[in-house]
Amino acid sequence: MPQTPPQATRELAGLTLAQWMRAHQDRFELRASAALPQPTQEPAELHAAMRYAVLDGGKRIRPLLAYAAGELVLASVEAVDHVALAVEFVHAYSLVHDDLPCMDDDVLRRGKPTVHVAYSEATAMLAGDALQAQAFAELVQTPIAAQARLALVRELASAAGTAGMCGGQALDLAAEGRQLSVAQLEQMHRLKTGALLRAAVLMGAGAGDTPPPVMAALERYASAVGLAFQIVDDILDVEASSAELGKTPGKDQAQNKATYVTVLGLAAARARASQLLAEALAALHDTGLPAARTQRLLELAELIVARRS
Amino acid sequence: MPQTPPQATRELAGLTLAQWMRAHQDRFELRASAALPQPTQEPAELHAAMRYAVLDGGKRIRPLLAYAAGELVLASVEAVDHVALAVEFVHAYSLVHDDLPCMDDDVLRRGKPTVHVAYSEATAMLAGDALQAQAFAELVQTPIAAQARLALVRELASAAGTAGMCGGQALDLAAEGRQLSVAQLEQMHRLKTGALLRAAVLMGAGAGDTPPPVMAALERYASAVGLAFQIVDDILDVEASSAELGKTPGKDQAQNKATYVTVLGLAAARARASQLLAEALAALHDTGLPAARTQRLLELAELIVARRS
Repeated sequence: MPQTPPQATRELAGLTLAQWMRAHQDRFELRASAALPQPTQEPAELHAAMRYAVLDGGKRIRPLLAYAAGELVLASVEAVDHVALAVEFVHAYSLVHDDLPCMDDDVLRRGKPTVHVAYSEATAMLAGDALQAQAFAELVQTPIAAQARLALVRELASAAGTAGMCGGQALDLAAEGRQLSVAQLEQMHRLKTGALLRAAVLMGAGAGDTPPPVMAALERYASAVGLAFQIVDDILDVEASSAELGKTPGKDQAQNKATYVTVLGLAAARARASQLLAEALAALHDTGLPAARTQRLLELAELIVARRS
Repeated sequence: MPQTPPQATRELAGLTLAQWMRAHQDRFELRASAALPQPTQEPAELHAAMRYAVLDGGKRIRPLLAYAAGELVLASVEAVDHVALAVEFVHAYSLVHDDLPCMDDDVLRRGKPTVHVAYSEATAMLAGDALQAQAFAELVQTPIAAQARLALVRELASAAGTAGMCGGQALDLAAEGRQLSVAQLEQMHRLKTGALLRAAVLMGAGAGDTPPPVMAALERYASAVGLAFQIVDDILDVEASSAELGKTPGKDQAQNKATYVTVLGLAAARARASQLLAEALAALHDTGLPAARTQRLLELAELIVARRS
């Protein structure tokens, strides 16, 4: 692992957050486009659907968290690329499956028709399945030591499975029409959304040589940011317009879903998000690293809580 | 890696094929039951559906191929356990998704209601998704060198994704109602069914120290057996009864699907299966290993071609 920031990182240090995000979003888009199979190859429809699900949309919050965590530990950006692709492929597959008629039955995502609307339900299901496999294929290629690569596979498999994202979605299904306590709601969201956001940070850091105390502080950061993200999502579902969200707002209420807003109320939900932001920033401080190293993760945490879409 | 067969393998050498299969099916069942999350833990419904999809059913052809390949290279059976679980979890997830209304819309599998009938479509989709993640989680725990473990993850991700199973299913979707050449049909089935069967053999061998010439011979074996399996499946879909199959026969024809029988005719399909069996046995001979080491893979190839269900 390089012990000094590579050229690209030094150049990025002077950027505003917006410039840094744009640079990494563009980088991600190029890498994702190169990694996904071409629609000119058979099976063409599946490849087209996979690309449609991943490319040209999304804020890339998970890849950005991975890149920022990688910068914090001075990981090679080429290694973090694989982490960024893997977490976003898993995120994209989960959206494709979540939008299907048997789940949320949503027709609009990132301002575009959902994958099963643009293609077919069968193709959408297969595209999601194939994206999950491709996520693990990406991780195996990460240019780091074999043991560190295996740790990435372990982390992603855990974050994506029953102890993570799929488990959270199942809890969400089971909760429909039921009253949840704040603790139950928090557990559901820590799994459903939090686990993969947390994995993005930890795997970005795992692409470098991260001392255990720094990793422990990043775990606290990632856990707080993952939960804050979902609380803000719930707030936005009530407050934002369809044009801002790029998806149908008010769905949670229409589906009688338990959210932070329905359980805590709007003011308390906002207060909880602010509290989690403070926890995240305190955790970054506890890494003991200079502000220049923690800057991007700090800015991303603020952005996640302040975002309007 | 042990260079002499472990105790368990020596004891198994005197077994008939039926006894050997039963011993490994029982072993697999115990390992799978222990590896899958308990239905007493939340999310209970998801866990129950995952267990329902995997346990108490199926011939375990893929695990048996993995165990037999592992015995051939004198791999530790504890290492092959992880391979067996991983390939069967991927196989089980693919059946759950394949049976959904948006795919084959099947209500009967292994003589039981399919997962979406017994639970719900949403739970079936999540159970499949979670089983894929768990397959990779199993591989990471394989007690072999890190590089060899990574090779297993690479092989499974490739066999499960667009270059393998998902790609084959997409080709199958695209082929509905169309005429296929024998070459197109073979390509579709090499991906759809062949890739994972092939991976079961190669990953079983990958759990041990397999010299490259032996691995090359096993690749030819696995490729021939993978294709023969599907040809026999197509023959059985025409010939066998529901009771024998444990699923609805005649579905291919009813869905106007291209099969080896519709494209080649029954006699030519049978001849092709016999030819592939001969190729598989020749490949085993080319390993240069004594008959005692290749016996189980030989018997399994014969069984796959001669099976009635």
